[in-house]
Amino acid sequence: MAINETEISTLGEFGLIDRITRDFKIQNDSTQVAVGDDCAVLNYGDKRTLVTTDLLLEGIHFDLTYVPLKHLGYKAAVVNFSDIYAMNGTPRQITVSLGISKRFTVEHIDELYAGIMLACKEYGVDLIGGDTSASVTGLLISITCIGEGEEGKIVYRSGATDTNLVCVSGDLGAAYMGLQLLEREREVGAGIPDFQPDFAGKEYLLERQLKPEARRDVIAELRSLGIQPTAMMDVSDGLSSELLHICKASNVGCRIYEDRIPIDYQTAIMAEELNMNLVTAAMNGGEDYELLFTVPLTDHEKVQQMKTARLIGRITKPELGACLVTRDDNELPLKAQGWNAFNKD
Amino acid sequence: MAINETEISTLGEFGLIDRITRDFKIQNDSTQVAVGDDCAVLNYGDKRTLVTTDLLLEGIHFDLTYVPLKHLGYKAAVVNFSDIYAMNGTPRQITVSLGISKRFTVEHIDELYAGIMLACKEYGVDLIGGDTSASVTGLLISITCIGEGEEGKIVYRSGATDTNLVCVSGDLGAAYMGLQLLEREREVGAGIPDFQPDFAGKEYLLERQLKPEARRDVIAELRSLGIQPTAMMDVSDGLSSELLHICKASNVGCRIYEDRIPIDYQTAIMAEELNMNLVTAAMNGGEDYELLFTVPLTDHEKVQQMKTARLIGRITKPELGACLVTRDDNELPLKAQGWNAFNKD
Repeated sequence: MAINETEISTLGEFGLIDRITRDFKIQNDSTQVAVGDDCAVLNYGDKRTLVTTDLLLEGIHFDLTYVPLKHLGYKAAVVNFSDIYAMNGTPRQITVSLGISKRFTVEHIDELYAGIMLACKEYGVDLIGGDTSASVTGLLISITCIGEGEEGKIVYRSGATDTNLVCVSGDLGAAYMGLQLLEREREVGAGIPDFQPDFAGKEYLLERQLKPEARRDVIAELRSLGIQPTAMMDVSDGLSSELLHICKASNVGCRIYEDRIPIDYQTAIMAEELNMNLVTAAMNGGEDYELLFTVPLTDHEKVQQMKTARLIGRITKPELGACLVTRDDNELPLKAQGWNAFNKD
Repeated sequence: MAINETEISTLGEFGLIDRITRDFKIQNDSTQVAVGDDCAVLNYGDKRTLVTTDLLLEGIHFDLTYVPLKHLGYKAAVVNFSDIYAMNGTPRQITVSLGISKRFTVEHIDELYAGIMLACKEYGVDLIGGDTSASVTGLLISITCIGEGEEGKIVYRSGATDTNLVCVSGDLGAAYMGLQLLEREREVGAGIPDFQPDFAGKEYLLERQLKPEARRDVIAELRSLGIQPTAMMDVSDGLSSELLHICKASNVGCRIYEDRIPIDYQTAIMAEELNMNLVTAAMNGGEDYELLFTVPLTDHEKVQQMKTARLIGRITKPELGACLVTRDDNELPLKAQGWNAFNKD
């Protein structure tokens, strides 16, 4: 611990909670009472309430040797907002629970919360509660996000039908390549004092890995064009995995065209440097937090006007299965090769 | 791992989620969509939504050498319901996030969920989502509970006023004594093969520690007698700590009478065996999950009719402070000696 850092035990649990919550200002009318009682109190009137939760564990989901705590806090909040947008809703409140081992100081927790607060401010979300505890090893963050949606406007995974079009926002595979880059530089620099990692020309990959954004701009564009998606998900485990979820929940198949998969230039360069298959990385990399959605065929012209998303394929009858159509017109069945939390290796 | 146990990696994340959620049946009209999409969808109409969250970590909050997993699951759910009742609300939905290390098998997680399911059935609460991940060490459980309340009927910590009466349900200190008993028997039995712990005559203490209940019967009795508490909390950190929270939030003082503190016979016997101060244990033991509440002086006769709670003191002007009045009429200032998650020792 550096000389100007503070042990958490000097504040105690209530002191720590007070310190980390006092600067959050309430931003939503639906937040009637936030932190400070047994429960928060929300008022949703005649809206529908959306609830999602995410658990982030040190050593499993993040590595603090290359992830700054402020970025971690920002990302932990944003990935939850992304789930609310993926239902065509608006995130409004979060609870944040932390488990904190002895190697963390009050200043570390301040950094983490600075990121959470920045995300809350950016997206207009209120912190309404949480639980804070010592942990035996490492840091853990459990966030639950509550949002609102309108009856009839909420979009599920199960609404895709035969002849629908498949679209995805932004580009894919960059967050995964950012992770590969961070891990490579960590290995190169291991044991070298004052090692300076080389990230030149790869800033976009780092940004996608360390500071992802939730695509509320896509939701806004869909609304402004009068498009109501039939099914939607956010891409967290990888495009293939999410497509299979939609196909299963909607009982449909799909054809995704390799030459339509949106990939950034930096992602392509990095894949070449690492001798990795670019399309595999884009289809299975994960952590993109882009929005994958289906729309009726009649919205074809509207989706072609979209600036935030593009057409990548179509929904088929279920018996046709879910396939990637390669540039040379082969059909490869999609596989969920996304990150699996319980893989043995 | 025993021969008929299953490694979690054989199911994978989605297989595990499917296994642990498929037997939960939806019990509330407000649960529109539960597990299986990016978010759950709730419909609260014109009710108020209550939200609370609790984090339980192995090695900090529980010790699996003497806590069965089914009991742990039950308790993890019930302590959240208790927070909703403490606002005069009704728990309706929970999300459950788990971090699971490699030493746990599918059967272990089934046991844990059997306890969560029993609690959900008992209290009419729906499981609506969660997140499940591998963890580096040990088990962690993060539960968020959502409940409903009525505008004008929700009870905060901040509503107590001078001349109010202070009441508490059930009895205090038994859960703490149960923990002492379990720890004593663990120490006595350490290294002795087939050691049989001696719990005869102390079953109530074990039950209070291992299978606490949330006091919805107290809420029901308050309603049936037409009592609207002015402030309320559940006793999780210990009576002293909770009284100080109410006094601070309401800007009042209090006088609690030692001879009015409800203590079970088994608690008293155990305190004597362990040579512990009984009143200290009852005031600071924690994990009682009883309801502490204040009522207007005009409800004096009504609270005296209560079967589930009793009068233990009165609210005073703030300048009089918060004190315990001993049997010999001394006034001892209350101190929050409850369990502190960040204590150094």
